[in-house]
Amino acid sequence: MSSSDIFIGETIGTAILILLGGGVCAAVTLKASKARNAGWLAITFGWGFAVLTAVYASAPLSGAHLNPAVTVALAIKDGEWSNVPTYIGGQFLGAAIGAFLVWVAYYGQFHAHLTDKEIVGGPGAQATDVKAVEAQETGAGPVLGVFSTGPEIRNVVQNLLTEIIGTVVLVLAILTQGLNDNGNGLGTLGALVVALVVVSIGLSLGGPTGYAINPARDLGPRIVHALLPLPNKGGSDWGYAWIPVVGPLVGAAIAAGIYNVAFA
Amino acid sequence: MSSSDIFIGETIGTAILILLGGGVCAAVTLKASKARNAGWLAITFGWGFAVLTAVYASAPLSGAHLNPAVTVALAIKDGEWSNVPTYIGGQFLGAAIGAFLVWVAYYGQFHAHLTDKEIVGGPGAQATDVKAVEAQETGAGPVLGVFSTGPEIRNVVQNLLTEIIGTVVLVLAILTQGLNDNGNGLGTLGALVVALVVVSIGLSLGGPTGYAINPARDLGPRIVHALLPLPNKGGSDWGYAWIPVVGPLVGAAIAAGIYNVAFA
Amino acid sequence: MSSSDIFIGETIGTAILILLGGGVCAAVTLKASKARNAGWLAITFGWGFAVLTAVYASAPLSGAHLNPAVTVALAIKDGEWSNVPTYIGGQFLGAAIGAFLVWVAYYGQFHAHLTDKEIVGGPGAQATDVKAVEAQETGAGPVLGVFSTGPEIRNVVQNLLTEIIGTVVLVLAILTQGLNDNGNGLGTLGALVVALVVVSIGLSLGGPTGYAINPARDLGPRIVHALLPLPNKGGSDWGYAWIPVVGPLVGAAIAAGIYNVAFA
Amino acid sequence: MSSSDIFIGETIGTAILILLGGGVCAAVTLKASKARNAGWLAITFGWGFAVLTAVYASAPLSGAHLNPAVTVALAIKDGEWSNVPTYIGGQFLGAAIGAFLVWVAYYGQFHAHLTDKEIVGGPGAQATDVKAVEAQETGAGPVLGVFSTGPEIRNVVQNLLTEIIGTVVLVLAILTQGLNDNGNGLGTLGALVVALVVVSIGLSLGGPTGYAINPARDLGPRIVHALLPLPNKGGSDWGYAWIPVVGPLVGAAIAAGIYNVAFA
Repeated sequence: MSSSDIFIGETIGTAILILLGGGVCAAVTLKASKARNAGWLAITFGWGFAVLTAVYASAPLSGAHLNPAVTVALAIKDGEWSNVPTYIGGQFLGAAIGAFLVWVAYYGQFHAHLTDKEIVGGPGAQATDVKAVEAQETGAGPVLGVFSTGPEIRNVVQNLLTEIIGTVVLVLAILTQGLNDNGNGLGTLGALVVALVVVSIGLSLGGPTGYAINPARDLGPRIVHALLPLPNKGGSDWGYAWIPVVGPLVGAAIAAGIYNVAFA
Repeated sequence: MSSSDIFIGETIGTAILILLGGGVCAAVTLKASKARNAGWLAITFGWGFAVLTAVYASAPLSGAHLNPAVTVALAIKDGEWSNVPTYIGGQFLGAAIGAFLVWVAYYGQFHAHLTDKEIVGGPGAQATDVKAVEAQETGAGPVLGVFSTGPEIRNVVQNLLTEIIGTVVLVLAILTQGLNDNGNGLGTLGALVVALVVVSIGLSLGGPTGYAINPARDLGPRIVHALLPLPNKGGSDWGYAWIPVVGPLVGAAIAAGIYNVAFA
Repeated sequence: MSSSDIFIGETIGTAILILLGGGVCAAVTLKASKARNAGWLAITFGWGFAVLTAVYASAPLSGAHLNPAVTVALAIKDGEWSNVPTYIGGQFLGAAIGAFLVWVAYYGQFHAHLTDKEIVGGPGAQATDVKAVEAQETGAGPVLGVFSTGPEIRNVVQNLLTEIIGTVVLVLAILTQGLNDNGNGLGTLGALVVALVVVSIGLSLGGPTGYAINPARDLGPRIVHALLPLPNKGGSDWGYAWIPVVGPLVGAAIAAGIYNVAFA
Repeated sequence: MSSSDIFIGETIGTAILILLGGGVCAAVTLKASKARNAGWLAITFGWGFAVLTAVYASAPLSGAHLNPAVTVALAIKDGEWSNVPTYIGGQFLGAAIGAFLVWVAYYGQFHAHLTDKEIVGGPGAQATDVKAVEAQETGAGPVLGVFSTGPEIRNVVQNLLTEIIGTVVLVLAILTQGLNDNGNGLGTLGALVVALVVVSIGLSLGGPTGYAINPARDLGPRIVHALLPLPNKGGSDWGYAWIPVVGPLVGAAIAAGIYNVAFA
């Protein structure tokens, strides 16, 4: 693969990943969306199928890492770091583009959500916690949640461990899945399996922190959130921003280590 | 493929697509349906698996485009337009037949919904917005929604952009998926992947406009809605009708352009 | 395939189909089940994956028809009727065994549901209609619903047409899927696709009648319902029993006709 | 496969299985989780995709049994018992590690749930039964439910039969699926199918007992529950603990017998 193919592939793929992943959060949480209050299962399937779609539109060019944690884990496994900056550069650019496109697609919904005081959930609202309903009342919480993750209980040690554990599972499944496919990268079926692994991590390990498990997925859109002209948007929670970067990178290193010891 | 195979295949396939896609909207929204209020996840999976089923029943004959946006994108990509009218003709005929069959299968439900004044959702109703509940009270909104899409917030620029973005994702995934399969068209697994991409677009980008992403899917059934003898059905919202036609066609052209520049 | 393999395969497969399909209805509707009120999406996925599981456990022996409508459609297509009685005999025996096993697995739940007067749904109950809640109050409605289908609106013409349309979609997808696989029957992937087609039919066409689309699935368990010593079980609704038998058989013949004209 | 590969593979795989399976129970039931009250469908898909992910990360090493019932059934089928203790040892060690990791990932949620008196479900809570809401009020019920299964209606005969029936379905599907793949063990697609079979069993047969269908899945985490320093955790329900061990082993023997008679 040429450097330009890698960069373009990762940019397109990660843009689609964040467009669809951020999109499902917007769809489920913002006012005046047909999918409002569709629930956690919708969010987890939405992110999983976002991975599926994004892998398709980038695998022919770059092999579809779409995640610095995956790129770093493969570099550790193979001892080959030369393309890492190109991959990660494309991933962050793509994540920013994707977050911008979510804002375009849900422009009216963002505005309605942030300017209406009565957003306490319509009939049948399924907010999963009293705290969540309170956040909806201010409107700013769900809007940041479209872009970046945040913890339900703010505890640096637990939040970091949860992100590490989630990323270990993701990366280990990708590395062993690669093994099954004789190292030829993700084919049609492999993309489906990785997508369902992402659904699994969301359902099972997403409760405490919202499962970033990908530094570009969290930091890229957070920067876009800080830059966009959203009314009443509040802060971008920069105090938490390092955890979904460091946690996944540590998890990637651990998973690569387990792989090299047990499977290689 | 012969012209008659293409026409028959697209007619059968698009009829099944709209029968099942319109069917899930009827099932979830109309009075006296066992699936009433089953929620947005049911609708998005319903449309995705409608694509899967429809592709099976038409791929052997016509390659299963089932969508003028797909037909146009492939024509742009390959520079071959001779079969385009046959494809699109079959798609519109099939869409009309499918919409008619939804009316047959849900005949009593349509009548009950449009003639009963008390349709405000039973216990546990999950209408996703106050506005949606109000529309249910009149009965006509959900009935038109079985046939055609409509926006939550009426804004020509945003509505058009949302349809364009959704269609770019759909068509790009189909084009690159075709690439993975060496250009041999959708096989068994490819049909599954495209179906899940459609679920993904529904979950992530369906909130603002209801994701037509297919001119035949929207315009064909809208014409049938205008013609059917449904009591108290109200108008067919012709003012909006051009957006789900123009948006997907523009999106198809953009996706074909991206494909030819980045992937070909 | 030998006659005994066909009979044993269809018996085992259809027993698993009805055990799992009736099981999900029991799980979602009966009192004292962990899955109570899990909703229509759970029921449709439950039936679809029941097909998947049942096909696996019978395809090596009999090719996994599991449905007289499928058996009849294949006989029409191939002009070969000699094994039809063996297939259908195994299907009805299996359906009866499966219904009996649902009763065993949910023994306490059936008893609790039929003898408790307060079964009006716990907090958050998602009964999809006022009528459904009323049926829950008597208890007998959901119990018959574990075994057999019934219409929301009783209308012979519509009910028959809905069952015919659903079966045409099912059988046409199976016949064309077989074509894709070069006529070698359902492989691992084909079983998955047929399972998702069944989910699709449930989501999209199940609202009016509960989608029997299989004479053995409906009539076999209805007989078991009539025979089992369930307290306060009420009648077995024999007046409706012919529709889920005749409708699917007519649909099978129509689908085979469409296949022979358009695809063969 | 070497003994150490088997032991390591089963340990890693079962740890991931229980981490993700226990994790989804924690996500859906504990206070201060984003997935709270996501419902039974989330739990059943969560366990199914936990199987998928776990199979990937262990199949290359050990063939991914992850369940003493599967190991015993294969030993009966093949008449080869020498590796059985290695498999089962790894499975129990892995199950204990997985349960410990759930506690780490959801540390704050466990503490919040067990120490807060007001845990009666936020707005839109979907507790499936009055009894479930009462158990939530004490807090200890859902916490044990993260680790081990328990019956809705305590009846030794029914509970045992339900676990036996569920395991027969699981093991028979695995044995016949293996046959389809020419005995080469689970490939990429086989893992997906077994995962969906587990979803099916959960949806259809999970209502009465919570579907252990795996002795290591239930007993290993129950021991961890007894050992962990959880405040107000209550007892570990040892009186029930033998049923999810004996039931699955009996079911495995029956399934192996059916397989050897009907399919071999």
